Amino acid sequence: MSDLLRTRPAATAAMLDLWSDQTLIAHALAFEAALARAQAAEGLIAPGAAEAIGRACETLEINSAELAEEAALAGTLAIPLVRRLRAASGKAGDAVHLGATSQDLADTVMMLQVRAGAQILVDDAARIERALRPLAQRYAAMPATGRTLLQDAIPIGWGLRIAQWAVGVEDATHRLTVETALNTSIQLGGAAGTRAGMGGRGIAVVARVAAALRLNSGPPWHGRRAGVAAIAAAVGILIGALGKVARDVSLLAQNGVREAREPLVAGRGGSSAMAHKRNPTGCQVALAAAARAPGLVAAIFGALPAEWERGLGGWQAEGPVLAELFLLASGAANAMAVVVEGLEVDEAAIARNLAVADIGCDIGESVALVAELLDRGD
Amino acid sequence: MSDLLRTRPAATAAMLDLWSDQTLIAHALAFEAALARAQAAEGLIAPGAAEAIGRACETLEINSAELAEEAALAGTLAIPLVRRLRAASGKAGDAVHLGATSQDLADTVMMLQVRAGAQILVDDAARIERALRPLAQRYAAMPATGRTLLQDAIPIGWGLRIAQWAVGVEDATHRLTVETALNTSIQLGGAAGTRAGMGGRGIAVVARVAAALRLNSGPPWHGRRAGVAAIAAAVGILIGALGKVARDVSLLAQNGVREAREPLVAGRGGSSAMAHKRNPTGCQVALAAAARAPGLVAAIFGALPAEWERGLGGWQAEGPVLAELFLLASGAANAMAVVVEGLEVDEAAIARNLAVADIGCDIGESVALVAELLDRGD
Amino acid sequence: MSDLLRTRPAATAAMLDLWSDQTLIAHALAFEAALARAQAAEGLIAPGAAEAIGRACETLEINSAELAEEAALAGTLAIPLVRRLRAASGKAGDAVHLGATSQDLADTVMMLQVRAGAQILVDDAARIERALRPLAQRYAAMPATGRTLLQDAIPIGWGLRIAQWAVGVEDATHRLTVETALNTSIQLGGAAGTRAGMGGRGIAVVARVAAALRLNSGPPWHGRRAGVAAIAAAVGILIGALGKVARDVSLLAQNGVREAREPLVAGRGGSSAMAHKRNPTGCQVALAAAARAPGLVAAIFGALPAEWERGLGGWQAEGPVLAELFLLASGAANAMAVVVEGLEVDEAAIARNLAVADIGCDIGESVALVAELLDRGD
Amino acid sequence: MSDLLRTRPAATAAMLDLWSDQTLIAHALAFEAALARAQAAEGLIAPGAAEAIGRACETLEINSAELAEEAALAGTLAIPLVRRLRAASGKAGDAVHLGATSQDLADTVMMLQVRAGAQILVDDAARIERALRPLAQRYAAMPATGRTLLQDAIPIGWGLRIAQWAVGVEDATHRLTVETALNTSIQLGGAAGTRAGMGGRGIAVVARVAAALRLNSGPPWHGRRAGVAAIAAAVGILIGALGKVARDVSLLAQNGVREAREPLVAGRGGSSAMAHKRNPTGCQVALAAAARAPGLVAAIFGALPAEWERGLGGWQAEGPVLAELFLLASGAANAMAVVVEGLEVDEAAIARNLAVADIGCDIGESVALVAELLDRGD
Repeated sequence: MSDLLRTRPAATAAMLDLWSDQTLIAHALAFEAALARAQAAEGLIAPGAAEAIGRACETLEINSAELAEEAALAGTLAIPLVRRLRAASGKAGDAVHLGATSQDLADTVMMLQVRAGAQILVDDAARIERALRPLAQRYAAMPATGRTLLQDAIPIGWGLRIAQWAVGVEDATHRLTVETALNTSIQLGGAAGTRAGMGGRGIAVVARVAAALRLNSGPPWHGRRAGVAAIAAAVGILIGALGKVARDVSLLAQNGVREAREPLVAGRGGSSAMAHKRNPTGCQVALAAAARAPGLVAAIFGALPAEWERGLGGWQAEGPVLAELFLLASGAANAMAVVVEGLEVDEAAIARNLAVADIGCDIGESVALVAELLDRGD
Repeated sequence: MSDLLRTRPAATAAMLDLWSDQTLIAHALAFEAALARAQAAEGLIAPGAAEAIGRACETLEINSAELAEEAALAGTLAIPLVRRLRAASGKAGDAVHLGATSQDLADTVMMLQVRAGAQILVDDAARIERALRPLAQRYAAMPATGRTLLQDAIPIGWGLRIAQWAVGVEDATHRLTVETALNTSIQLGGAAGTRAGMGGRGIAVVARVAAALRLNSGPPWHGRRAGVAAIAAAVGILIGALGKVARDVSLLAQNGVREAREPLVAGRGGSSAMAHKRNPTGCQVALAAAARAPGLVAAIFGALPAEWERGLGGWQAEGPVLAELFLLASGAANAMAVVVEGLEVDEAAIARNLAVADIGCDIGESVALVAELLDRGD
Repeated sequence: MSDLLRTRPAATAAMLDLWSDQTLIAHALAFEAALARAQAAEGLIAPGAAEAIGRACETLEINSAELAEEAALAGTLAIPLVRRLRAASGKAGDAVHLGATSQDLADTVMMLQVRAGAQILVDDAARIERALRPLAQRYAAMPATGRTLLQDAIPIGWGLRIAQWAVGVEDATHRLTVETALNTSIQLGGAAGTRAGMGGRGIAVVARVAAALRLNSGPPWHGRRAGVAAIAAAVGILIGALGKVARDVSLLAQNGVREAREPLVAGRGGSSAMAHKRNPTGCQVALAAAARAPGLVAAIFGALPAEWERGLGGWQAEGPVLAELFLLASGAANAMAVVVEGLEVDEAAIARNLAVADIGCDIGESVALVAELLDRGD
Repeated sequence: MSDLLRTRPAATAAMLDLWSDQTLIAHALAFEAALARAQAAEGLIAPGAAEAIGRACETLEINSAELAEEAALAGTLAIPLVRRLRAASGKAGDAVHLGATSQDLADTVMMLQVRAGAQILVDDAARIERALRPLAQRYAAMPATGRTLLQDAIPIGWGLRIAQWAVGVEDATHRLTVETALNTSIQLGGAAGTRAGMGGRGIAVVARVAAALRLNSGPPWHGRRAGVAAIAAAVGILIGALGKVARDVSLLAQNGVREAREPLVAGRGGSSAMAHKRNPTGCQVALAAAARAPGLVAAIFGALPAEWERGLGGWQAEGPVLAELFLLASGAANAMAVVVEGLEVDEAAIARNLAVADIGCDIGESVALVAELLDRGD
């Protein structure tokens, strides 16, 4: 039973795969295997137990639908997953998930997904930047109508607006990279975040697991959720930067402007009622994402005042919302990459609109500004 | 590839089924069949064409994954769906989707789903009401600690709080029923909302299609989205009312209060680290839903200022968000039904806490208020 | 020290006055006076005490800045206000605020303000409706370019879009009227919502106070906040309906469209840099309100899961947010009233754009739809 | 006419002053004076003109209520302000505001206010950190009940929770400092963001004005609003971190826990109905702020997809919302500073609760974690 039509109208396959049950389970097993190995290295469990757990993690076959049902009932993935893994680990079963709690698993897996998701977005955004920069330079000096408050204003270099788009996307991508690097930290603190049950070797175990999973090491953050909020904000800002490009392209493509429009893509942008129409469908995807992102960011910010050592209801809401943000961002980034890579520019229309506007052709320091913007974003 | 673990942690199977691709396709075909029949009745297409289209709608087999991919590319479900239906309708193909536009299909299907979704929620809420009302009456006169601003205040009848829960859920359910009845209207206006292409029989065709689908008839609302916002608000308020019950039950279940707690349900509420613990997992589901709902409602409100005859990016964001609201509400309603149906009340703890609070036992007009509240909500 | 420039860029004077400290204090004193009179009528306090309190409420002079400072410290208005009123009531001081709690005062006053605020909005909206209806009828049959997804689509009657605006505003106004009528209920339940301290005459006292203040009578709703959420949603939907008109007018006023624009109003719409420009400033006000409303509605929905008999932090957030919604709505309604009352329509541009679009001039059933829409909204 | 009671229940006087009309006007005049001086230095206007303008900026007396009314009508502060300044500058009037546009003024002033507002918050947050660090250390090794999902879990060092609070506030403060430093950039691009009208000396003029106002220099960002979003997110995260402390303190102060509570402050925390009660009023202020912040952040994120060179409705919504965020943060930070500076800790209750919980007293690596956390936040 799928629900792509209703609820995932535009996410990329790579991003859907990343947030799928299958990937989540794989990351969860990677966490448990790394934990066992780290604990063996620190002498908390027998080396053979870690090997057995590691093998079980590699070979365990899980029916994700059954697991999802049990996890929904349990209110946590860890319980049914750990039960399966214990059963599969034979005598080493007791050594599974030692000193860890459900949220350790949930949060660490989420951060593994965040790291991979950010990389997907950075790659898609790079396509946009590669397409926009030469456009900005090519049209830096071409006089065009600048528009403010939806009214013709004074001339700009047509490339100046594009340079602003480029910097917007680049800054947002940079922000996402930085926030991901800073905040993709391991969560491993045990039942109440004290690293109890680690035989006093907690700090070393945490460092080893973090290294194995290539996450930042550090103290637990079960009740301190600012890192999640910062990541959500960064994705939200990226979606907004993509939405800005989409807003402008869709306005430029209006019949009364028509200075640029989306490329013709087979199967895209048609109308079920008007065969001749070319709809700004790529922009639609990005604008729909931008319409949804702020409320999702708000939901994550709302979870910040968590109760005590681990809250009730707040952080449990974060995972689905964060996934939604990344899924939306992937659709928006991919759609806008296609749009700007094939953007159809109508130089004659640009000149005609400027002439009609009757505002002269003094583009001020547009050329210098394009250079300044593109240098800045490098 | 499923993603239940990450993004659908608690929705009920019935609600997941309702918003699935399969149900959506079924509703979409029902719309096209009803449209053809109505147009035949009004003499716009041949009766045989309507029959052929109706048969095609019944027998057409659609690969939903392929359809989803094409719909994502097209930016609309209608184009790939109508193409398939035309092909399956043989000579009647030209009569398919006559005078309709993509959004007619999308919005009408959404309203069919809303109507069914509201019914599911009303049924789940009725379980809650049936459980709460006798509890409220049984404990109406039992003196207990009233608490305000998280501090012991003055005594209440223990059933008064429960009567407030009951009225909260009942009022919210009533609101949802009313808003659904008022706002589940057919959308059928054609390319620009003028009912062009209906040979002047548009109003009659619309009335027939609406009757066949049991939706309200009326003028198109492509760019007038208040009905969607009103439905979203009603679902959001219901989620909030369920969250209120969850908030109170989870607070009552605290170790230092322990006046009530969730029933023991096999597979629920355990801890991966502390076997003895009974977590308020049902409350967690409802509170997580309540943490997410406001941002979703906001996203739908944000789409109200749509552009011209049909907006770009706004209404396209509504479908997924509305689905999410109903999915969250289903999980919350179901979880709280289980919680209140089996609520474990500890009368001794209630008495003990009141004695410790040392605030007397004057419960004012609690008994009368319980009666007043329950009468009001009837 | 005022902050109109930064934080109240557009609210009307009437609405600012309604939510001012002065009006709030007046309503608060009206509540206390009505409470005393009701309690005298029910024999709870001496008639002379009620008279003394009533006189004190009429003559008490309050330094609102001092009161605000004390209220901020106390975390509630009631404490410093009741202290002043007791002092001013002489021997009747002990009879002041009997059986009432801070939230009774706060919520009842809020509902008095809501009722008055809704009336202001209904009056402003009526101006809009009066202006739009004749416009819709005048232009019902004039062929014009219909536009979907920001692209020229097929022809519409130019008045059809306006009829949709009119119905949008009218439906939203009707909703606000209904929700206000249903939900402006007195709050009077005492410390824990049991009507303790009313000598068993609580229900009668409540009914009398409600009648005196012309609010709905009923049980307390300290922890059951759906009524506030419903009002907030209604104001949010009205702002969205106004934003829809503003969106369309601002798009119509674009240089490449220019089918309509805001009237020239002295002191409005100029540019500090371009003297010739006429900016859509009225639309700007409404669109800025529409940008802010969804997050405000979300904040109020987020307060629904209140703790126990009176929550901590949630309902206290509602008052300022609700005030903000009404202030924004007043600015938007007033701005759009001016816009549509003086809307400059360019019939030649409408015809020219349609000719350029080359989409024929079949406006379908636009004329009938205008009639249907305007009948429906009556 | 003030509205502190309804809409500013807790902002500090310093923050109210910062966002007042008076301060805004002062900053606006500082901008105009700096612009004139920079243009004189670059030879665009006569040195005498800059002197005259500078003098006018220092001596101009402005009736802020009148200005607010005209600005509301104009839809921008700049027009009525510049008119006054031109009149006051005598022959130099023509040299006022040269090459600048309304948004240059509005955005630059907003950034001046942001910079000062962040400093106020950093100072208040420093009080919290100074109070929390010694508390965390003092109680690092004291066994106490750890609580997860609102249930007793396993023991923690009582100071560990406090160390988490401290790091939460410190990280959020650090983020605000960084984002403010990065994003408080001058806005100076003229009518369409091209620096037209600066005689080709725009880059130098901008650098000079930025230096005079101690803002970052750089290209205009009229339509690229990520900096504002980043600042809003940082304030929102800080409010959330304060809300986290408030949540925990209010839960700790419950009668059935009572391990800590707010200090007794004259005039604070009383009840209008129950004289004996000590309400967590400081926490209430912070939690109410945390309830409002997410929706405000969402509003600012929603403005990211601005139209073309300067949008309509989006960025105009930012100023009031950003002001609200800073005002809320100031109230929350100040309230929580008072709370944690005087936090009353009941060691006997801590021990008693732990004994009742019957969960042993193994606090794991709590002591090391406290050290690790406090080192990290340094």
